[in-house]
Amino acid sequence: MDIKKINYKIEQFSIQRDWNKYHSPKNIVMALTGEVGELNEIFQWLTEEQSNNLPSGTKQHAKEEVADIAIYLLKLCTKLDIDLEEAIIEKMKKNEEKYPIDKVKGSFKKYTDI
Amino acid sequence: MDIKKINYKIEQFSIQRDWNKYHSPKNIVMALTGEVGELNEIFQWLTEEQSNNLPSGTKQHAKEEVADIAIYLLKLCTKLDIDLEEAIIEKMKKNEEKYPIDKVKGSFKKYTDI
Amino acid sequence: MDIKKINYKIEQFSIQRDWNKYHSPKNIVMALTGEVGELNEIFQWLTEEQSNNLPSGTKQHAKEEVADIAIYLLKLCTKLDIDLEEAIIEKMKKNEEKYPIDKVKGSFKKYTDI
Amino acid sequence: MDIKKINYKIEQFSIQRDWNKYHSPKNIVMALTGEVGELNEIFQWLTEEQSNNLPSGTKQHAKEEVADIAIYLLKLCTKLDIDLEEAIIEKMKKNEEKYPIDKVKGSFKKYTDI
Repeated sequence: MDIKKINYKIEQFSIQRDWNKYHSPKNIVMALTGEVGELNEIFQWLTEEQSNNLPSGTKQHAKEEVADIAIYLLKLCTKLDIDLEEAIIEKMKKNEEKYPIDKVKGSFKKYTDI
Repeated sequence: MDIKKINYKIEQFSIQRDWNKYHSPKNIVMALTGEVGELNEIFQWLTEEQSNNLPSGTKQHAKEEVADIAIYLLKLCTKLDIDLEEAIIEKMKKNEEKYPIDKVKGSFKKYTDI
Repeated sequence: MDIKKINYKIEQFSIQRDWNKYHSPKNIVMALTGEVGELNEIFQWLTEEQSNNLPSGTKQHAKEEVADIAIYLLKLCTKLDIDLEEAIIEKMKKNEEKYPIDKVKGSFKKYTDI
Repeated sequence: MDIKKINYKIEQFSIQRDWNKYHSPKNIVMALTGEVGELNEIFQWLTEEQSNNLPSGTKQHAKEEVADIAIYLLKLCTKLDIDLEEAIIEKMKKNEEKYPIDKVKGSFKKYTDI
């Protein structure tokens, strides 16, 4: 993914509309939350199985909400000066240490209670 | 960002722990929501100005929550067969059409009411 | 439910700790969101059926999160001068008009698409 | 607040539409989250000060979202057999013990880090 190009587009979008003044990290977190709410609305009445087999219209809707979430997440990273790729790599490493394979494998109880 | 490599890591993490059975799109949306809740907890009592100047410990905490959100978002894209980069590009284009510069520039009212 | 008594307790709790200064409606919405995130974490990996039959420890945990959400919701109503009972009654009436029984009964499609 | 009467109305609403089959606790939590997302959308670009002085149209909008959240919260309590008043009282007591006045008064740092 060409994060640099996407971040440039996201920044230009706000600059051209003079909207950066609204985009404090606090506000972006709320906007991100709003989009996550919309994603929940898509899945709220679906069974898990249905959520694995979305009709094309619903999938398109989900795709748009996922994009909105990603856009605000990238914007938040820009504002907070977070390198998202680095953040993910570091967190994955931390998760691997927190959930050792031999202790949690397949176990629902351990998955939640460890 | 090397999405392919990151997605591979995320998949391996779940496969090794036999956790994919819990990862229906519906469930992932809830897990994503949980992480967004934790991000809100970081910013809830901060002023907008403070949110622009996080102490290093708080920034590190935010970085980890942002990573968790990104990890679940990428996992959701894998499960729903969504190309995240494509999704973002398409949504940015749609947003540009929805919010024409000359109609919304700098205007808070129009920003929310258009 | 003795809302008046509960609201008094909630107010006293904040006043005694000098925390009202943090409790702008905007901030309370974020705090409410944090608690809703925690509620999601309880249910995220459960099947719908499991969610109908919580073990007692999990139920107690859910009870506490539900209480946290209610406390912030009541606090928000106080701050915004909203009569919650009136708000609910009015919204129920609006929902009844929005979803006429003969048009939506039992229909999942209509439930979401109407 | 006449919780019994409100709960009766909420139940009747679902029964008449044959919607209870969608209302597993897990699903209700997602629906609640969707409404909380909408509440966030109202406040996301407002300053804290503006959130304290909502124009009447915005206040009406907030009132409706607050009602939606309360309705799903009450429904969740019914499904999980939680007495909301009892839950709130117990949680307030727990909070009072967790945040002793003499240790946290007025202190933002202690408020978040205790």
